[in-house]
Amino acid sequence: MGDLFWPGDERAGDLASEVAWLAAMVRVEQAWLDALARAGIAPGTVELTGLVGPDDLAEVAHVAEGAGNPVPALVALWRERARGLGAAWVHRGLTSQDVIDTSLVLMLRDAAERVHRELHDQVTSLVVLTHAHQGTLIAGRTLTQHAVPTTFGAKTAGWLTGVLDVADSLARIPLPAQFGGAAGTLAAVVELARLRGVADPVAVTTTVVADAASALALRAAPPWHTTRTTFTAIADALVTGTDAWGRIATDVATLSRPEIGELLERAVDGRGGSSTMPHKRNPVLSVLIRRAALTAPALASTLHLAAALAGDERPDGAWHTEWPTVRELARRAVVAASHTSELLRGLRVDDARMRGAARAAWQDLTAERRSIAAFVGKAPPDDDYLGAADAVITAVLARANAYLEARQ
Amino acid sequence: MGDLFWPGDERAGDLASEVAWLAAMVRVEQAWLDALARAGIAPGTVELTGLVGPDDLAEVAHVAEGAGNPVPALVALWRERARGLGAAWVHRGLTSQDVIDTSLVLMLRDAAERVHRELHDQVTSLVVLTHAHQGTLIAGRTLTQHAVPTTFGAKTAGWLTGVLDVADSLARIPLPAQFGGAAGTLAAVVELARLRGVADPVAVTTTVVADAASALALRAAPPWHTTRTTFTAIADALVTGTDAWGRIATDVATLSRPEIGELLERAVDGRGGSSTMPHKRNPVLSVLIRRAALTAPALASTLHLAAALAGDERPDGAWHTEWPTVRELARRAVVAASHTSELLRGLRVDDARMRGAARAAWQDLTAERRSIAAFVGKAPPDDDYLGAADAVITAVLARANAYLEARQ
Amino acid sequence: MGDLFWPGDERAGDLASEVAWLAAMVRVEQAWLDALARAGIAPGTVELTGLVGPDDLAEVAHVAEGAGNPVPALVALWRERARGLGAAWVHRGLTSQDVIDTSLVLMLRDAAERVHRELHDQVTSLVVLTHAHQGTLIAGRTLTQHAVPTTFGAKTAGWLTGVLDVADSLARIPLPAQFGGAAGTLAAVVELARLRGVADPVAVTTTVVADAASALALRAAPPWHTTRTTFTAIADALVTGTDAWGRIATDVATLSRPEIGELLERAVDGRGGSSTMPHKRNPVLSVLIRRAALTAPALASTLHLAAALAGDERPDGAWHTEWPTVRELARRAVVAASHTSELLRGLRVDDARMRGAARAAWQDLTAERRSIAAFVGKAPPDDDYLGAADAVITAVLARANAYLEARQ
Amino acid sequence: MGDLFWPGDERAGDLASEVAWLAAMVRVEQAWLDALARAGIAPGTVELTGLVGPDDLAEVAHVAEGAGNPVPALVALWRERARGLGAAWVHRGLTSQDVIDTSLVLMLRDAAERVHRELHDQVTSLVVLTHAHQGTLIAGRTLTQHAVPTTFGAKTAGWLTGVLDVADSLARIPLPAQFGGAAGTLAAVVELARLRGVADPVAVTTTVVADAASALALRAAPPWHTTRTTFTAIADALVTGTDAWGRIATDVATLSRPEIGELLERAVDGRGGSSTMPHKRNPVLSVLIRRAALTAPALASTLHLAAALAGDERPDGAWHTEWPTVRELARRAVVAASHTSELLRGLRVDDARMRGAARAAWQDLTAERRSIAAFVGKAPPDDDYLGAADAVITAVLARANAYLEARQ
Repeated sequence: MGDLFWPGDERAGDLASEVAWLAAMVRVEQAWLDALARAGIAPGTVELTGLVGPDDLAEVAHVAEGAGNPVPALVALWRERARGLGAAWVHRGLTSQDVIDTSLVLMLRDAAERVHRELHDQVTSLVVLTHAHQGTLIAGRTLTQHAVPTTFGAKTAGWLTGVLDVADSLARIPLPAQFGGAAGTLAAVVELARLRGVADPVAVTTTVVADAASALALRAAPPWHTTRTTFTAIADALVTGTDAWGRIATDVATLSRPEIGELLERAVDGRGGSSTMPHKRNPVLSVLIRRAALTAPALASTLHLAAALAGDERPDGAWHTEWPTVRELARRAVVAASHTSELLRGLRVDDARMRGAARAAWQDLTAERRSIAAFVGKAPPDDDYLGAADAVITAVLARANAYLEARQ
Repeated sequence: MGDLFWPGDERAGDLASEVAWLAAMVRVEQAWLDALARAGIAPGTVELTGLVGPDDLAEVAHVAEGAGNPVPALVALWRERARGLGAAWVHRGLTSQDVIDTSLVLMLRDAAERVHRELHDQVTSLVVLTHAHQGTLIAGRTLTQHAVPTTFGAKTAGWLTGVLDVADSLARIPLPAQFGGAAGTLAAVVELARLRGVADPVAVTTTVVADAASALALRAAPPWHTTRTTFTAIADALVTGTDAWGRIATDVATLSRPEIGELLERAVDGRGGSSTMPHKRNPVLSVLIRRAALTAPALASTLHLAAALAGDERPDGAWHTEWPTVRELARRAVVAASHTSELLRGLRVDDARMRGAARAAWQDLTAERRSIAAFVGKAPPDDDYLGAADAVITAVLARANAYLEARQ
Repeated sequence: MGDLFWPGDERAGDLASEVAWLAAMVRVEQAWLDALARAGIAPGTVELTGLVGPDDLAEVAHVAEGAGNPVPALVALWRERARGLGAAWVHRGLTSQDVIDTSLVLMLRDAAERVHRELHDQVTSLVVLTHAHQGTLIAGRTLTQHAVPTTFGAKTAGWLTGVLDVADSLARIPLPAQFGGAAGTLAAVVELARLRGVADPVAVTTTVVADAASALALRAAPPWHTTRTTFTAIADALVTGTDAWGRIATDVATLSRPEIGELLERAVDGRGGSSTMPHKRNPVLSVLIRRAALTAPALASTLHLAAALAGDERPDGAWHTEWPTVRELARRAVVAASHTSELLRGLRVDDARMRGAARAAWQDLTAERRSIAAFVGKAPPDDDYLGAADAVITAVLARANAYLEARQ
Repeated sequence: MGDLFWPGDERAGDLASEVAWLAAMVRVEQAWLDALARAGIAPGTVELTGLVGPDDLAEVAHVAEGAGNPVPALVALWRERARGLGAAWVHRGLTSQDVIDTSLVLMLRDAAERVHRELHDQVTSLVVLTHAHQGTLIAGRTLTQHAVPTTFGAKTAGWLTGVLDVADSLARIPLPAQFGGAAGTLAAVVELARLRGVADPVAVTTTVVADAASALALRAAPPWHTTRTTFTAIADALVTGTDAWGRIATDVATLSRPEIGELLERAVDGRGGSSTMPHKRNPVLSVLIRRAALTAPALASTLHLAAALAGDERPDGAWHTEWPTVRELARRAVVAASHTSELLRGLRVDDARMRGAARAAWQDLTAERRSIAAFVGKAPPDDDYLGAADAVITAVLARANAYLEARQ
């Protein structure tokens, strides 16, 4: 994998690639077919894995244009190539959207899990950074100008809060399977159950849905063909991620400007160089993270728009906008999460320069203090004017530790 | 109130108006000043309400341009106009962002509460509609074309699921107060406590923060000047709302086309007419709801972008983008929620026409059924081919009832 | 005017305010009524100005909700309050969208003219800056790091190019009137002409349209009720503006960081201060400009979305999204343009610090030069390594001068 | 090619694929190297085509992450693999951004040309449709409801206007080459010219830039590394395209609803079927076009955002967001253009049903007419109440014919 247009893309591996999507669709159809067989609706099941391979994808994509989605072409191939009693039963009772939605949820779960791992890594790094720099004096900067003193640990505690917020947000995303049939009534599978003489076809259908969802470790839920909270909630969580990482990267990019020089990305061979300037040490990870953060909000907005336009029992375009949007958001979030983990693990903090710059700007940084002292009519104390920075940091670290313990 | 550019705007009343913002800022400064006084830092408190009024707003807005935000002008007026020991203590220890962020949270809480009430109303209407039309046959439509039969109750169960998802999402939004001082260290208030001879200034500062937050019924939290999850989470919840309402409105707009005519908005005097066509009965509520749903995702994306660019201890532009964006999202969401409640309360369902159209299209609507029967080699049954629609509806109604009971 | 939520808003005056919109709608109806009378269709005209005033707006907004737009309420008031033969003829032949679209175009033309004036101001300032600093050495910075030397004049030539591109873009926006009647066929006015015994009613209608458009100094055009290029083109031009200004503001914000200090916004009493830090000199104009630049792209995207969804002869929501979006884009663009003009007029360039910083970083800034010399096997020359900067600047200045001459 | 996630993607062929990008970058480097040689700066040129192939892309992408862009890895391979005097001279004088920007412009020019061809095709079809249906009565529909009569030709004239607007917009996009060197001063190439003893190095550099641009048939322009109007203008034009097509598709989707049935997409084997419902005839092209139209505005907004954040001499993330965004916008626009051409060529118009439906709704459709007649106090005429529809159509057709003639 890899994508010239999105350097670092290979970090997402084959997540949400065409091949991965095919594999996820196979899993969905397999879970369904197995459930049909277990329920006595299908006379048996067949193994679907491997029947359709990467070499088929161009043809499947071509046929997909006519159908408007890739499922019918796949179903035709599976039925044609599978051998055994259940071969003709592939996809019976489902609609294309069931397969596409559920397989996208599977891929998004993968993405969420990868992001979760990166968040854990980031929290770990940030706890270390925050402890180490709880007392590292740095100039507070607001609206680009020097404000009052703070500590680098207070800054990383803010980063940490953002990352923990992502973890909370991601922990709450729903992961339902989608099994509803042509218009969300599950009529086809009920009918099949009835025609095949199964007792209580509706109850059995409910069982089949639960069984297939369970095989995929997804939640069984009423059909949500046109209730798209599943995708918008995941998108919102992923963008909350790129927000948190983008804000860290923005800080690192600023603080690694040569005139500031308080932070540096770890030197890595072949990274951050220039095609013409041998001395350059660009904050490449920060740049690539910011790139992701600048594009993600628009992608999430597309998914919300699709949700708002999800009319009828399947809408005329809104649904189709979701697939590539979800893919890109997932891949970019995973790549940015990985970039951020690496950034934080290797961040070089020039605490001497931080302190030195703060001391050099001490007059400005303590102007507020002097005006307070004048207001109260007393002489200002002579310490670092760090207020409750320690207490704030302690509170954030406590939250971080609770997170780390809960995830052990 | 009212806004020619956004018909229906007056439904939001003075929510997040300039006057309401002023009032919210007064509440924040009052809570803080009272807490300072209670902690023995300020020598007393003064009543701030009414000191600055609507007539001052033009001047405040003018001065706000120079400062980049309206707080300094307000503080100057409060200190000038308040009478009493605490007058000079107004805003001591705070930074402009503390006041702005916390007051925006107060206004967003108002918005959330109004939306909550509307959601309750909507759930109530939808439960009634769903019960009433659990068996009302309607043509399922996918990609604009007839698919298989469903019931209108199954459709409203889908709407209901969307609305319940909004309630869940909104129930989880954080509502923290923002008290951090110039760079998030609370240095000024700690200093004031110390200069005023208060014992353990840091501990007292923590108490002041908790006390002021509690007076506003907000959560005390570590400063989040550049960790903007508060606003993005609320925005995501509100857009999840406009998604849910927009999707309902999209369905109503489609089904009230004269060629379909299965739904009609309630006839109200003076509504839905045309300036030139006296017979017209436009689905005005649906149109206005869709309008909101089409604009909200872009507003939320602006808030996410601002979060990603929240660098330093206060960013150079990103923060300022939030204020009007939050206002518009809040007002538009409240108006759209109200429109949707009214739409659902008054929705006229032409069940005879639904059924008639479905029967007229019965050949097409049962094509799937016939192909299934052919596949199994049996004759298809002769009922309505509604599969598990009842079971799906029952599950959704159970969720709705749990929601209604929990909110009683 | 003024808006606490958007400091600086009063710079846009009453552009696209509710009162201004009312006035623009009066102009449109007046132009139409006058044209009807001149063509002998209406028996006479009446003066509409002043019949409906600001005090009516709340009621008009209220009634607008029922109609979905404010025109019917206004027409009722005009017909009721006007005295004279033509009173009952107000709005005859038009549809609400004709009035709304044409009045929005009038307001957008105002916005465009104000922006044009600011662009002229900006070009003038930038020509001066570029001349003055054609030889002012400054460190080139790429990806936040020092690259090779350049001049501040080369940088401002880049700003200038952006501003000239906006002027080009804005010069091409179409400004058509919208006169189409209920469904774009002008049937009502043709009918009125016929019933009133006018010869060749269709030809006369064409004349009426041309006449009314001409009275408004707009282009007559085929009805464009659902062909929304008018608004998207203006939006694209305005966003091209906020892009150009945002990029300048981004540079100024960065270069006025205290650690860099090469640029400063002009000191103005009461500007850039802080509520708690008396020494602060925030780059307020840059911050406010960046704010506008961060919000404008999402607004323009909403207008494009509305254009894509403009179905039937008038769409069910997309049209309504345009009004507030156009208003905000127009006001924000005008305010940002004014901020940028002021920023450029008052920009303080610390050329000594620029040069000093470049010399201090000379080793890094000439690394490329040394690697080139090594490659060629010669010793590098000993000048400023500014390449063709002068020639580039000269080319840009020539374009600017052509622009200024053309607009004299 | 083909993309499961974007059915129809293969219509864009290899436009803006990784391989196409590589080829475009080769063209840029070749043009530059040839120009260097022709100017006597490089001692000779070498053939670059074929030196780096698809098999190298994964490795190039991998190395690109470290550099932040793919150019350094490519340059290393080219220099290593080329044989001849000029081999070491590849890329001398350029910066990565020169190669990336210019190659993206080349690809966007390809996209624009393909879109131009489709526009021509669409105009041709629309002229035929408009002529054929100039008199085909159809119900005008506003806000989903019946309004007044119009003709299908008037509707297609509106579509045609939108398409012609795209052509106008696309005809004006700038296509400049980007040659600026590390910080836009062209210092490296001037230096190389000087060290190589070329007379008047700056003048020669200007010639090299013009020569290389000319070899690529692009315009020579001052460096625009941080003035991104090139990409935003193209993006705006392409989105103006998806707007126009999306609006057509919206109309077709609505009018092909079975309850309306006035339009149908051409029946094509294997298109518009369903995986479970054999009778279905989904308007697949319209659905796929709408999909593109719903996603394009957000992509264009990302490019505007990148333009606004293009600080320094190369920004820290904004630039990197452009590459995949430009690729997707280009491919999706080309695919949607092709879909629209095919849609229009094959559109089946059921004029009998149009007329029948209009006649059936005649009472409603002529309500306006009756109210006019009552107002004037005369009996309404008894024709089709089509007003100036013919004149409007004639004006649009004249514009279309002028376009077609100009492009012959």
